[in-house]
Amino acid sequence: MSTLSRRVITAALLLPPVVGWILYMPSPWFDWVFGAVIMLAAVELIALFEFPQEKWVVGISMGSLLLMLLGVGFMQAIFMLALGWFLVLLCKHGDKQQLQRLALAQWMMVWLLIFFWVGMQTHSQKHGNYFILGACLGTWASDIAAYFVGRHFGRRKLCPAISPGKTWEGIMGAFALGVPVAAAFWAEYLPLSAPFTVALAVVLVASGITGDLAESAMKRAVGSKDSGHLLPGHGGLLDRIDALVISLPATGMIWLSL
Amino acid sequence: MSTLSRRVITAALLLPPVVGWILYMPSPWFDWVFGAVIMLAAVELIALFEFPQEKWVVGISMGSLLLMLLGVGFMQAIFMLALGWFLVLLCKHGDKQQLQRLALAQWMMVWLLIFFWVGMQTHSQKHGNYFILGACLGTWASDIAAYFVGRHFGRRKLCPAISPGKTWEGIMGAFALGVPVAAAFWAEYLPLSAPFTVALAVVLVASGITGDLAESAMKRAVGSKDSGHLLPGHGGLLDRIDALVISLPATGMIWLSL
Repeated sequence: MSTLSRRVITAALLLPPVVGWILYMPSPWFDWVFGAVIMLAAVELIALFEFPQEKWVVGISMGSLLLMLLGVGFMQAIFMLALGWFLVLLCKHGDKQQLQRLALAQWMMVWLLIFFWVGMQTHSQKHGNYFILGACLGTWASDIAAYFVGRHFGRRKLCPAISPGKTWEGIMGAFALGVPVAAAFWAEYLPLSAPFTVALAVVLVASGITGDLAESAMKRAVGSKDSGHLLPGHGGLLDRIDALVISLPATGMIWLSL
Repeated sequence: MSTLSRRVITAALLLPPVVGWILYMPSPWFDWVFGAVIMLAAVELIALFEFPQEKWVVGISMGSLLLMLLGVGFMQAIFMLALGWFLVLLCKHGDKQQLQRLALAQWMMVWLLIFFWVGMQTHSQKHGNYFILGACLGTWASDIAAYFVGRHFGRRKLCPAISPGKTWEGIMGAFALGVPVAAAFWAEYLPLSAPFTVALAVVLVASGITGDLAESAMKRAVGSKDSGHLLPGHGGLLDRIDALVISLPATGMIWLSL
């Protein structure tokens, strides 16, 4: 079976439970399932770095997710993560190389934790479930359009040093499909004006592309192509959520501040 | 003039304005002066990394400090910093090496921002000024004790790979002086029980030592000895506040959660 068909089948199987989860699961339960997904992504991320003291690094990450789930706070979670990881390095006599890898892993972990925190806060608002689903649909649509437009019309490379597959044509495709999908969904289900939803959708697609590039840059820095093999045809979980990790917080923070 | 005398003179000259600022400047003004100090430390930190696009990196850091000063939020500031720095790297076609250095710089910046946020929040509480002054006095006392005890009785190295000067004897000296100083000050000026202030003071000294080591590790990773030359005899500003950057948030978060 080709990678593409495997990709489509995996997506089709995952779509109904994911949409059902976002739309119909009430907030505290939504949060715990979300926390489990973030934890899987964190484990995948940490595995990429091949720390010799992996167990401890994972345990501390789980602790900081718990601090968030129990509502202690975002900053407290980041503080625990940064301090805990550094202490592990210290106790295991880690060297300069390992500190750099730890800092890089932490860079991605901070993104995951921001994603998690904004996701929880957004979902607990009125219409929050529709906001999140719109962000997901827009991000997925832009992802699909970038893939097909890039494949058939892609010529000018976007930034070959970080992500050789990305082209300016693909980016245009991402905006052409992603912006109307997200804007139309948000305008339909949320009490927002049409021009505002378009502006928000532009932020969504632009930040999603940035997220995609950020994950590519990180994988390149650790010398890996896929983040894992959890999802057939999609690489790892991180590869699947990389755009959303930035696009949901970027738009969610704007929406929450209204 | 010896380094030690220069160090003592600088400290003596700085002490009165710093104590006056902490004790008597009301919260919004305190915050802006604090913000200026953090910005100086951030500039010093960024200079250590010798980014080719330094101006932009500094500008984005200033933007995220402003987000905090205007009360937008800690997470928003971290998000802006991480996204902005990455976009600078992307636009300047930064490579893998630069991404690693950026991640390392961001690791320290996150500490500085947590320090700033907790400092502002603590200071705005009733007795917050006394809490901060106690944390400073305890941290300074433990620093001085570690220096002299380590110099005269230091034998067993703590972790030569990161900070060759630190010894277990110095650490014991730090606890022996720092804990009673902080605990006595807090017990005198804050409505806290004596055993609690002792426990908090132990956290203060332990986390201060960790902060000191974290800054040493970071400097070692970028291959620098002093963080700057701002304070005669003390090296840079970062070298002076490194312990406090961790010890104030560690104890401040506990105190704020009471």
